[in-house]
Parts: sequence; structure tokens; C-alpha cells
Amino acid sequence: MSAAGAASGYRTLDQATLPALLDGLTDVRARLGGGPSDWQIREVGDGNLNLVFLVDGPSGTVCVKQALPYVRAAGPSWPMSLERAFFENAYYRAVAPHVGRLIPEVYHYDPALYCTIMERLSPHVILRQGMIAGSVYPDLGEHMGEYVARACFFTSDLALGCERKMSNVALFAGNQALTRISIDLIFSDPYVVSERNRHTSPQLDGLVQEMRQDTDLKIAVAQFGRKFLTQAEALLHGDLHSGSVMVTDGDTRVIDPEFSLYGPIGFDLGAFFGNLLLNAHAQCGHATAYDDRRRQRDWVLAQARCFWLAFRRQFLSLWQEHSGGGTGYPGVLFANAIDAAAVERARVAYVDALFADMLGFAACKMIRRIVGFAHVADFETIDNAVLRAGCEARALRFARRLLTQASDFPSIDSVMDAVHGSTEMAPP
Amino acid sequence: MSAAGAASGYRTLDQATLPALLDGLTDVRARLGGGPSDWQIREVGDGNLNLVFLVDGPSGTVCVKQALPYVRAAGPSWPMSLERAFFENAYYRAVAPHVGRLIPEVYHYDPALYCTIMERLSPHVILRQGMIAGSVYPDLGEHMGEYVARACFFTSDLALGCERKMSNVALFAGNQALTRISIDLIFSDPYVVSERNRHTSPQLDGLVQEMRQDTDLKIAVAQFGRKFLTQAEALLHGDLHSGSVMVTDGDTRVIDPEFSLYGPIGFDLGAFFGNLLLNAHAQCGHATAYDDRRRQRDWVLAQARCFWLAFRRQFLSLWQEHSGGGTGYPGVLFANAIDAAAVERARVAYVDALFADMLGFAACKMIRRIVGFAHVADFETIDNAVLRAGCEARALRFARRLLTQASDFPSIDSVMDAVHGSTEMAPP
Repeated sequence: MSAAGAASGYRTLDQATLPALLDGLTDVRARLGGGPSDWQIREVGDGNLNLVFLVDGPSGTVCVKQALPYVRAAGPSWPMSLERAFFENAYYRAVAPHVGRLIPEVYHYDPALYCTIMERLSPHVILRQGMIAGSVYPDLGEHMGEYVARACFFTSDLALGCERKMSNVALFAGNQALTRISIDLIFSDPYVVSERNRHTSPQLDGLVQEMRQDTDLKIAVAQFGRKFLTQAEALLHGDLHSGSVMVTDGDTRVIDPEFSLYGPIGFDLGAFFGNLLLNAHAQCGHATAYDDRRRQRDWVLAQARCFWLAFRRQFLSLWQEHSGGGTGYPGVLFANAIDAAAVERARVAYVDALFADMLGFAACKMIRRIVGFAHVADFETIDNAVLRAGCEARALRFARRLLTQASDFPSIDSVMDAVHGSTEMAPP
Repeated sequence: MSAAGAASGYRTLDQATLPALLDGLTDVRARLGGGPSDWQIREVGDGNLNLVFLVDGPSGTVCVKQALPYVRAAGPSWPMSLERAFFENAYYRAVAPHVGRLIPEVYHYDPALYCTIMERLSPHVILRQGMIAGSVYPDLGEHMGEYVARACFFTSDLALGCERKMSNVALFAGNQALTRISIDLIFSDPYVVSERNRHTSPQLDGLVQEMRQDTDLKIAVAQFGRKFLTQAEALLHGDLHSGSVMVTDGDTRVIDPEFSLYGPIGFDLGAFFGNLLLNAHAQCGHATAYDDRRRQRDWVLAQARCFWLAFRRQFLSLWQEHSGGGTGYPGVLFANAIDAAAVERARVAYVDALFADMLGFAACKMIRRIVGFAHVADFETIDNAVLRAGCEARALRFARRLLTQASDFPSIDSVMDAVHGSTEMAPP
């Protein structure tokens, strides 16, 4: 399997050309029912990088995602490697055996068109939209904790032999274009003057300027940046924010793993955790005369807590269940009965060290979404700039504390205590 | 550049077939002078894995190293990937621009024969042999510290953009056969019952048995094993013991990088440091009526100290000189004058954290050379088993302290103080 060599034959799909492609795929055709003339097609892509088509047939429905050769939000002037579709498919293939019910089913991948035909998730909504709208999803934290635990454990040295792990590392080390984007947009741009940046102005001007001068903050960010570059612990989704999760009341699915790469587990943990914290900080901006959004904020924070605890519990449980199966902490080393308690202590210490990583990466993600290139709807949909800036400033300050005063946050409860204050509604 | 696809056309070279190969290489032929009938060829390989020919011609001389498809010490029953020759050549190419005068010059690499034709080092001797014989090399520690600093710095995220680094990581992630050997022989076998192990018996039986029961020791080893698997800091030599270094009074050359891989810098540091400590522990076994070997032991330990300090100084100096050139700690982040002092503190903290890695990996390497598969001549040439076992036991105990009481060793001087006691000559 390789990302190269499929460059020829690419063309952008549209409503007119897509039916012929689907018609040629026996499984997909059968799933839709009828024939091309019976299929309804809508393009619904709202992300930055792709075309997304929903196709309805008489007996079924599919989703078609095609990579564009440029950043959609910026237009053809910002070219973008098509290979990200290859890596998205490779990620789905790698984790599907372990998290199959938490990702969409992939029916077909077309390497020449950089196009994935997959399960259409319905009636799912994007988690971010649901949280902004005030919806709650009772199993969210539990499902997402399980997701990161399983996807990361089974692609790490704890489960894989070194040969398989090294082959995976080699494969995903090809995802350079999107890794470069992560590095620039998360670990560099927000702290310097860059054309790609924007922030709520003039309200946040002072804070943004202050952050660019904050050496301690920048050094902490650089240390997490270097960890991101060097620590190949597990296969990561690479962009696990609340826009990469689709939900219903009882179902949770992770999508869009095109930024996938081998990296530190804390990076995926932090992406999700940080986006919940962003949403919690945004809730007061969505208050109405009928709903102060305090309960919604509390629910979001409870899910953040639940997410970490579920990850921790499930990762440790997987490690016990599949003890010593990989090259890391090999089972043969700890075969004596006398070893068991000490091994368990070492496992707990290892997982608890991921907590600090989660917080640091969460903070990096929070900051880039407020003062960097790509913003989040949680804040963007707050029309009143003063109100929005107030929410954003509290989130920025909290993120900065996570990075520069890390020792204040030894436990999930210490984070929860502090973030409750940081997300407390300002008096009207 | 790829390791695959060159499988056909391999044949083992010998004195009869080598001349024709060399005759076909214009540069090599010119270097040797004359023609095949004028060339003297000797096979001198004494390692575990390769044929090594020295070729003398009327005007010059070359060294030819060819990979064998099995472990030479074990015979054809232990097959071994030929691709290691490819990775050796890839390593030489990657580091040559930065450490050219500390490695042999490579004249030609034949991908089908897995054969490297390179500078013959003369009158160099293998450092290990020289140290056993009681020779001293005044610049050894300084040269080797410079070597690791330069080879690692320039292949790390501190010097490379993420695209180049990721391409390197992908390439060397192919060196799976030799990485598997490192993992098994260093981080697993010595602590379990394995046919590949041996030790001075019965003298060390008790200590070996004790180590297999020492949970704290095994957990420390597993943690360093996992660091080896996950932490892709820099391109490593991968086997930087004193048998991989050739020396004269004033010249130092590193050879045999066939175990090369991306990994933690402390692994290369520890390999060399640990082998100096092994030699220091062996010195009293080589005492004669005329030389108690105390001065030689002191010289070896002084070089170990010098090695670390030279590495530290030169790595920091490279980082200052090439500040912000790579994706790690990017220069753009720290452009303010106010940042300078804090950045320098962060660099010092980073390099000093490598010290603990060096000690841990050094200890892992020391143990595997005494109770694992491949032993070292430093001890093996001590004929008296009781004397040898005494030296080995002190080295094992010291290594165990490095791993299980790491906090006792915060500085190079604390290590030097302790190792002087550990290598003190037993009364006759």
C-alpha cells in the first residue's frame, strides 16, 4: 500500500459525473437500489478541504467524500495534497477492526479520484453543532474515551510487534502536507504575526499581543510541538475536534481522519478535550432569556471529565486484557507472579502521564481556534463581538494557565474546579 | 531510494570474484592502481554479520564490506536480512555532510550485492582492542561527543523541516530486522531464560537469577525499551559500542551503522558511554605484575566524562548556531530579544534530560553484554573465570543501580564518583 503513483486520472466529481462512478461499483449500486436516474445527489461539504456528496437511492443511501487539490476555504491559491484521502482511508482500515462501530463503514476507496464512498450517517449531526444548539448526548464522553483508548492502544507498541508498528510509522510518515499544516497552524502561527491569523478585534488585540510576548507560553507550546514531532506512540486521528464527530442520542461516530499520523496519544486526547472546553467557554454567548445555558455548560464539562476517565479506565483495561502482546512492555519480561502488582503500577503511571499531555495539547488547540486561521462555530456564531470576545478571552486565559502553570492541574478534578470558574457566566 | 527490489543478483563475494567487481568501478580501480592481477585481497571480518575484505593495490587500498544473509556467528541457521547494508549506506549518506571526517569515506555501494566499497582505515585499530591492550587516545571523548552531537542534531527536528524528517523516518522504519534484534537482545533476553543467553557460570548464576526476579529492574528496562520504540528524536547509529569505532592517536572514525534507525538520542549516547564503563570494569582483569591498570581505568573513565561534556557543549552550540532552523522550536516563535534567555534555559533543560536517557540506555547495554547473546572482548579475554566474574558482577551491579536508583545520578560527577568505587581493584 502506498500513497504515490495514483496521481493520474484525477478529476473533480460533480452531480453530473458521480452517478457513472457509483453505477460501476456493484456493491454500492446494490446498496442504493435502482439505477443512476433514480439517485438524488446533494453536495453538502462544509469543511475546508473536500467535496461531500450525499446520494439517495430507492433502497439506500451513501456518502461520497472527495479530496480537492486546494484548501476550499482559501480557494485554488492554497494548493493541498490530494494524498490526504489516501491517509484517511489507511487510517480507517487500520482502526476499523478495533473501533468499527464508532466510525462510518467504508464501502469503497478510489485511489485515482482520491474519493471515499462510505456509510451515510443519518440522522446524525455534527457534534459541534449539536452542542451549540444545546443538545446533550448521554454517552458522548464514554464513547469518545473508548474510541481514543481502542484506536490508540491497538496501534501502539503495547499491542503491535515492532515490525508492524514500524511499517505503520513508515506509511503514515508520508502524510507530510497535512502534518505541516498542523505544525504551522497549531504550534507556530498563533504566536506570531501571520496573514493566516485572525481574532475578534479590537477586543482581543491586547491579549493576542501579550501572548506573542509571553516567552513561557511559547516555550511550553514549542515543547508540545516537539513532542508532537517526535513521540510516535500510536496512530492518531490527528484532528479529533468536535467537528470530526457525528452523533445521535445513542450513537457516536468519528469521521475525517485525513490528518492521521503516528504521534503522542495526548494529541488526540487533547484535541477532543480542548474542543469541549472551547464549547463550555462559548455557552454563555448562546444564553437567551429562556436559557442561561448553565446546564448545557455543566453537561459539556461533565462529558470532558467522563471522556478522560473513560479513556483511562478503558486503556488500562485493554492493557491488562492484552498484556504483553506487543513489543513494548513485552509479556515475557513479567511472567513471574511477583511482577504483577509492580507492572500494574507502571501502567497506571504511564496512563496518568498522558493526562499532562492531554492538557497541554488541549490548550494549544484552544488557542489556535481563537487567534489562528481556522476558528470554531462555538464562538463564531456569537454575533455580539463584545460578548464573543469575553468568552474567547476567558478560554484563552484558561488555555494559557494550562500551559504555563501545568503543575496546578495534577488531576481531572483540579481542571474541572478551575474551568468552572473560567466558564462562569458574566453578570448581564 | 528504497531498500526493496534489489533482491536478485546477490552472491557471496570471495577472493576469486571480488577483483572483477572492483575492476568494473573506474574510481576504485584508479584508486587501487594497476589491475586485478596486482591486487592483494584478505578477508578479515570478525564481526557477526558480514564479510570484510581488505584490498591492496600498487597505489592505494580499499575496504569491501558485504552483508551475509545469516548471522555469521550462528551460521546459516539464523537468517538475517541483507537490507542492513542498504541502511548502513543510507546512514552514511545522511550524516556524511555533518560528520564526514569522523566516518570512513564511501566510494561505492552495490545495491544488488549489498556491498559497500569504502576507505580502508589504516593504521587504525578497533577502539575496544586498543583499550583492552592499554592504549590511550587523547581526543577520544571529545571526538565521540562531537560525533553524536553532530550526527543527531542535524538529523533531528531541531535542524530539519518536518517533511525531510518524516521522509527519513519512513526510510529507516524499513530497518526492521535489525531493530528486532536490538529489541530482543537488549530489552528482553537478558532478563529471561533464553537459549541465546550465556554468562560466566557458575560464578554469576545467582546474580543472573536475581536479576530475572528484580521487578523494578525489569520495569526500568521496559520503560527504556518503550522509549527506544517510540521516541524518534534523531537518526541513530544504533550500535555505537567501542567495536564500532576505529582509532589512531589523533583520528577517530565511526563504522558499522547497519542498525541505524530513528530513535532517542540517549540510545547512541548510552551505547558508547556504557561500553566505556564496561571497559573500565574490565581493566582490573587485565592487570599484570607490571601494570595494575589503574591508570588505564582512570583514563577510560575520564574519557566517558569528557564524552558527555563534549556532547553537551557541542549539541548546545549547534543549537545556538542553527537556531530555529528546523520544525522543532522554530525560530519564528522566539524572534523577540526578550525570549533569548528563556530559550537558552529550555535548551539546557532539554539536553540535560538526555543525560538520564544516556545512563539508562548505557545500563541496558552493559547488562546485555554480560548475560545476553553477544559478549565483549573486554571481559571475554580475561581467562581466569573467577577474576572475570568479579569484574562482570561489579559492572552488572553498577548497571542495576543506574536503572533502579536513577535519582542517585543527577550529574556526570555523581556517576564518576560512584563508578570509581565500582571499578576499584579488588585486593589480590
